[in-house]
Amino acid sequence: MSREAVLLVSVGASRRDAEPWIAALAARLPGLRVAALGDDVDPAAVRYVAAWKPPHGALARLPSLRAIFSLGAGVDHLMADAALPPGVPVARVVDPDLTARMSEWVLLHVLLHHRQAGRYRRQQRESRWADDAVQPAARAVRVGVMGLGVLGLDAAAKLRMVGFDVAGWSRAPKNVPGLASFAGPDGLDTFLARTDILVVLLPLTPDTAGLLDAALFRRLARDGRLGGPVLINAGRGGLQRESDILRCLDDGTLLAATLDVFEREPLDRASPLWRHPAVTITPHNAALSDPDAIANLIAGQIEGVERGEELRHVVDRGRGF
Amino acid sequence: MSREAVLLVSVGASRRDAEPWIAALAARLPGLRVAALGDDVDPAAVRYVAAWKPPHGALARLPSLRAIFSLGAGVDHLMADAALPPGVPVARVVDPDLTARMSEWVLLHVLLHHRQAGRYRRQQRESRWADDAVQPAARAVRVGVMGLGVLGLDAAAKLRMVGFDVAGWSRAPKNVPGLASFAGPDGLDTFLARTDILVVLLPLTPDTAGLLDAALFRRLARDGRLGGPVLINAGRGGLQRESDILRCLDDGTLLAATLDVFEREPLDRASPLWRHPAVTITPHNAALSDPDAIANLIAGQIEGVERGEELRHVVDRGRGF
Repeated sequence: MSREAVLLVSVGASRRDAEPWIAALAARLPGLRVAALGDDVDPAAVRYVAAWKPPHGALARLPSLRAIFSLGAGVDHLMADAALPPGVPVARVVDPDLTARMSEWVLLHVLLHHRQAGRYRRQQRESRWADDAVQPAARAVRVGVMGLGVLGLDAAAKLRMVGFDVAGWSRAPKNVPGLASFAGPDGLDTFLARTDILVVLLPLTPDTAGLLDAALFRRLARDGRLGGPVLINAGRGGLQRESDILRCLDDGTLLAATLDVFEREPLDRASPLWRHPAVTITPHNAALSDPDAIANLIAGQIEGVERGEELRHVVDRGRGF
Repeated sequence: MSREAVLLVSVGASRRDAEPWIAALAARLPGLRVAALGDDVDPAAVRYVAAWKPPHGALARLPSLRAIFSLGAGVDHLMADAALPPGVPVARVVDPDLTARMSEWVLLHVLLHHRQAGRYRRQQRESRWADDAVQPAARAVRVGVMGLGVLGLDAAAKLRMVGFDVAGWSRAPKNVPGLASFAGPDGLDTFLARTDILVVLLPLTPDTAGLLDAALFRRLARDGRLGGPVLINAGRGGLQRESDILRCLDDGTLLAATLDVFEREPLDRASPLWRHPAVTITPHNAALSDPDAIANLIAGQIEGVERGEELRHVVDRGRGF
């Protein structure tokens, strides 16, 4: 590849946040100049972009651009930029390490609700021994996974392996052996009505924005073994209406919620979610990207494109993921 | 089978605790009289015993006894009775439901340590967003499972499926495909030196009593990714020295401990374990027996014996499990 070709890295507009990515990518791609957004770079030399939440419009006038890589699993931060050059393919990162981390987080938080960890933490605080709580078997607890991409399918498989009664929902029908799966708006009612623990791993698109609202929560199963339905969201904060979550926790529509993502991040100190006794919060770290692993995957993609191979994991810009 | 034959049920010496078991067993075994210890029963009519912690000596003079069934996975409560009739086979319960429950508990508590749940609970209490903690991948965390019976093997397989680097230790060598396994006193040092999270599912025998002491904790890995070794015991309380656990938590030999079992149960309100910040306590309910499921398994065994089949899951009374 030409010595002039540039891989432009943008992590927001911050050079400091971009630096570990630049170092990791430069180490893997000696034939390419790796620069940060804002560096003195000829726009015509920029052949690739690797970005996380780049400033809108920043990628608009790059005439030699061959591909845009997201530095994480989501691409909504790119799709939201109306000035994203229309003809250029956008590729997501499909990192087995990130998938494994997400499934760890999902298993942990499903098991915390299933095994009534809050009850036992309270008992311990009171130095109180009590083993008379009824504990349903995992096969009597229905977990519903919304979003059957790489993350959702891996989480669903591992939840089934632990013994839960798992179903999945996705936009388009998927045929997954052994998994009860539902699709589209028509399948949503049946899916929700058989779900005790709702695990959300959907992408954020115009179709899914605000989907997790009071109307949806009211359609969840009321006859489950946990005493009420539980919401677990590790997809995107834009999927949820936080005022509805709080209202539904308070009126009993939801038993509990575990949230890794929020409408605005970082979550405001004033948000009542922090202090709600039925809410568990993690700071959008269910599955953090390891810069080295991801740089490796992006470098492999760039090398492939330079050899004339097809770009993999390309986003369908029409549907937004 | 003869109308006179009796199945004697003993749950400690309490008739009330025995009642749900009597009901479940009687429903499954209409040809047998199911009675509680203390009921007016001809000792010569007692053909079977199903027991949990029966009073020592209570099973001594039952001349027609063909088999003794434990109502749980452990049999140490029976082996501890010096007056247990020597020629009578003792069978343990091998309940797939109980195995699944134990693996749920093990996965949950390993993941709680691995994913630093305590840190995020503290941050939430302080309404503080911080996502800068380093999170190792599961494959960089070494879990060691002590005890490779049905429970240990199932837990090890599920921990590997989540991604942990799992090894096992057992009294006698086991060849488990894909599992690094160590055996006997000679294999213990190597096993402990590569263990960040120690999961104990050993039976309680004269060989294992008090095994989990300061000397053993000091042999655990000091170079792991979690900041120190973690003890998780769901085997038996008699395996552990609680004063050593507390000392090793305070001097940094152990980072944390999760205990479902205790030297004396219920754990005394005065025990400092309740209030130690690095200790997580559950009230010996990692895997509770479901009377119906277990009655079903015992009834199946009795029907088999009556048909002349061999009793399954018989305890080796020499080694004690």
